[in-house]
Amino acid sequence: MKNYKINNGVILSFRDGDIVTEARTIYVREGKITFSPFGEDESYETVDASRRLIMPGLVNMHTHAYMTMMRNYADDVPFQEWLFNRVMPVEDNLPKEAAYWTSMLGYLEMISTGTTCFVDMHMYHRQPPLAAKDAGIRAYFGRGLVGDDLCKDGYSRYSEALEEKKEFESDTLNFILAPHAIYTCSPRLLQQVAEAAKEHGMLKEIHLSESLTEVEDCLKNHGKTPVQLLSDLGFLDEETILAHCVQMRDNDLDILKNSGASVVTNVASNAKLGNGIAPISQMKEKGINVCVGTDGAASNNTLNMFREMGLLSLMHKAHTRDCLAIPSDYIVKAATFNASRALKNPAIGNITEGAAADLIFIDLDAPSLFPNNNLSSALCYSANGSEVDSVMINGRFVMRKRELLTIDKERVYYEVGKIVDTNL
Amino acid sequence: MKNYKINNGVILSFRDGDIVTEARTIYVREGKITFSPFGEDESYETVDASRRLIMPGLVNMHTHAYMTMMRNYADDVPFQEWLFNRVMPVEDNLPKEAAYWTSMLGYLEMISTGTTCFVDMHMYHRQPPLAAKDAGIRAYFGRGLVGDDLCKDGYSRYSEALEEKKEFESDTLNFILAPHAIYTCSPRLLQQVAEAAKEHGMLKEIHLSESLTEVEDCLKNHGKTPVQLLSDLGFLDEETILAHCVQMRDNDLDILKNSGASVVTNVASNAKLGNGIAPISQMKEKGINVCVGTDGAASNNTLNMFREMGLLSLMHKAHTRDCLAIPSDYIVKAATFNASRALKNPAIGNITEGAAADLIFIDLDAPSLFPNNNLSSALCYSANGSEVDSVMINGRFVMRKRELLTIDKERVYYEVGKIVDTNL
Repeated sequence: MKNYKINNGVILSFRDGDIVTEARTIYVREGKITFSPFGEDESYETVDASRRLIMPGLVNMHTHAYMTMMRNYADDVPFQEWLFNRVMPVEDNLPKEAAYWTSMLGYLEMISTGTTCFVDMHMYHRQPPLAAKDAGIRAYFGRGLVGDDLCKDGYSRYSEALEEKKEFESDTLNFILAPHAIYTCSPRLLQQVAEAAKEHGMLKEIHLSESLTEVEDCLKNHGKTPVQLLSDLGFLDEETILAHCVQMRDNDLDILKNSGASVVTNVASNAKLGNGIAPISQMKEKGINVCVGTDGAASNNTLNMFREMGLLSLMHKAHTRDCLAIPSDYIVKAATFNASRALKNPAIGNITEGAAADLIFIDLDAPSLFPNNNLSSALCYSANGSEVDSVMINGRFVMRKRELLTIDKERVYYEVGKIVDTNL
Repeated sequence: MKNYKINNGVILSFRDGDIVTEARTIYVREGKITFSPFGEDESYETVDASRRLIMPGLVNMHTHAYMTMMRNYADDVPFQEWLFNRVMPVEDNLPKEAAYWTSMLGYLEMISTGTTCFVDMHMYHRQPPLAAKDAGIRAYFGRGLVGDDLCKDGYSRYSEALEEKKEFESDTLNFILAPHAIYTCSPRLLQQVAEAAKEHGMLKEIHLSESLTEVEDCLKNHGKTPVQLLSDLGFLDEETILAHCVQMRDNDLDILKNSGASVVTNVASNAKLGNGIAPISQMKEKGINVCVGTDGAASNNTLNMFREMGLLSLMHKAHTRDCLAIPSDYIVKAATFNASRALKNPAIGNITEGAAADLIFIDLDAPSLFPNNNLSSALCYSANGSEVDSVMINGRFVMRKRELLTIDKERVYYEVGKIVDTNL
């Protein structure tokens, strides 16, 4: 494993929860960040980071990377048409092996735009983690779970989830339990998942209160909101990641706050499918841990976290007519630092002594960023993702000066092209 | 002037108002598009546009390019603080000559992200058009007008507007009359501008109904909405461009529709300053000619039209909870074709026989666009602007394979850097 001395850069990190930017040399030893210079007997490469901002890699806290093949495939159609007639038939017929390449296409886009870690809810046993291992990207995988009983109809997927964990768990690949939603999983199964997560020491993730229909149906069927339902089932705790949380009612936000669960907002997807705008300002007020996700490319239609960061602020400022809503510092933190708390992984989301070297290098001379009046503003309001020049994950460069080092783009395009021709 | 044969590209144009994409060879003769091959005696260069989408250049219908030096300079502050304590003191003290470089910085970003033409309301006599001439970018300039009487306190700026027209008007540089707003111009001055515009055959542009305060004050002072006020003054006609139109009341939309005026929506700026969301869905229903603008970088904070296009759709889909609102075809047209109508210039906004060769080449192999399931969706929902590979304006390449050919980026950065150091 190569060591690096990174010179002349501007470092963005979090200290006591606040953003600090400073000129500082950092060292990468055995994949980890340190501020101690190398000894004379240590070998390392010196990286000149002049005119580069170095920050913790972005963490895409909710996506379905295999869907990237369906980018721009079914837009401006009603939600039911989108899901049942366009997306699901493709998913149902996609050969499992295809998901290796369609996931890799997503990893390629994520790395290109500065994402070093993501949480993926997937449907295709083994293929997404296999591709992530080859790409060298950090990930948390959750095989989507559905059904009535984890020991019966839910068992095959659950056992696959545990098999994936056993086969692939490593420094960079992690595994979680990911029941799909309250309308595809029975209360019993959700309770079983909560128990299984404790037993195996796994985090859990679920789609929650994404659409008005979900909330209305839940109120009708259970007499309570989806949040209250999960709370009553013992599902909500600090090891829980809740994707969406758009339609909040009654005491939902207080329940979330008290549970310690983290929320992942997916602004573009919620907008594009007509689900609305999550109440992030109120979550911010309550101190709920908010993270950022892109959702899948079939509903976004990009896995570019920089677009998501800008959208998050602009959408809320417009909706609340409050130009102070959701400031840029909050957003930069949500896309990096907050993921560390949600994932119970202190090694990511910051540049500190001993943290994993998940670093992105941003070109401060990009036309979108110059002049560099305020770096946090720049990341949120003017960056478009193309300013990411180099990406290091766990101490290894996966992109350098825009060149992808672990992914063969032409091969990925060739394979995905064939899959698209056959399946879309 | 060089001629070009452009081979192997996919051409996006508008036919009977609809988007058509097709493989087609196009020719550029004397700065104009033609579909007739060159004769044996004509010299030309062959351009291989394989895996490129070629479309009409984007038209940024409302900006203040000189403000680009204030990018990311005053964000997440209350509007009054932003305008009166941060932006205006800088503008007031900026030496006129500085506006050459600060405008050029804006042109650099616009060209890099596929804008070939823009409408600029500016404050610094001669400098913005001088820079545009050097950059080779197409533009419509309006020296901002304010005051009580065009013949008295408004005269110096008005005469500067006419002087600029006289000095710089050309194939690519055009001049309009740009009274700032109803709260900085008297009704008399607005009427005088309307008459002067007719006399000189000039278009006119104004900021209108941007904030709630503007509308409330107008109702209080004039007993009518800003739209009704302008209508009663004889200001609204087909030669009028109205920036913002966020806060629409009463019959405003019908008045706009009947006048034939064009609206420029500035989604990011309206969001960021807390002004809200313009009712574009209703404008669309009524058939009002809607165009797209970025506003200045001090309130956006980028001049990237691709971000604006995506925002326009996502913001309205989220706000109306209607996933069918403002589809991508509408947006692609608003950012190109509709500008032709607003600017009374049939030579721009489309790829047709005899049109000006304002063309952008988009890399279909960019990670954000692959696979190319739907090109209109791609431009609106997944492009971030960095996919623009080459830009031609009036038959001349100003960017080729990402290399700027008319702007010396290092010189611009050096000069703007000095200006920022002294003035911010």
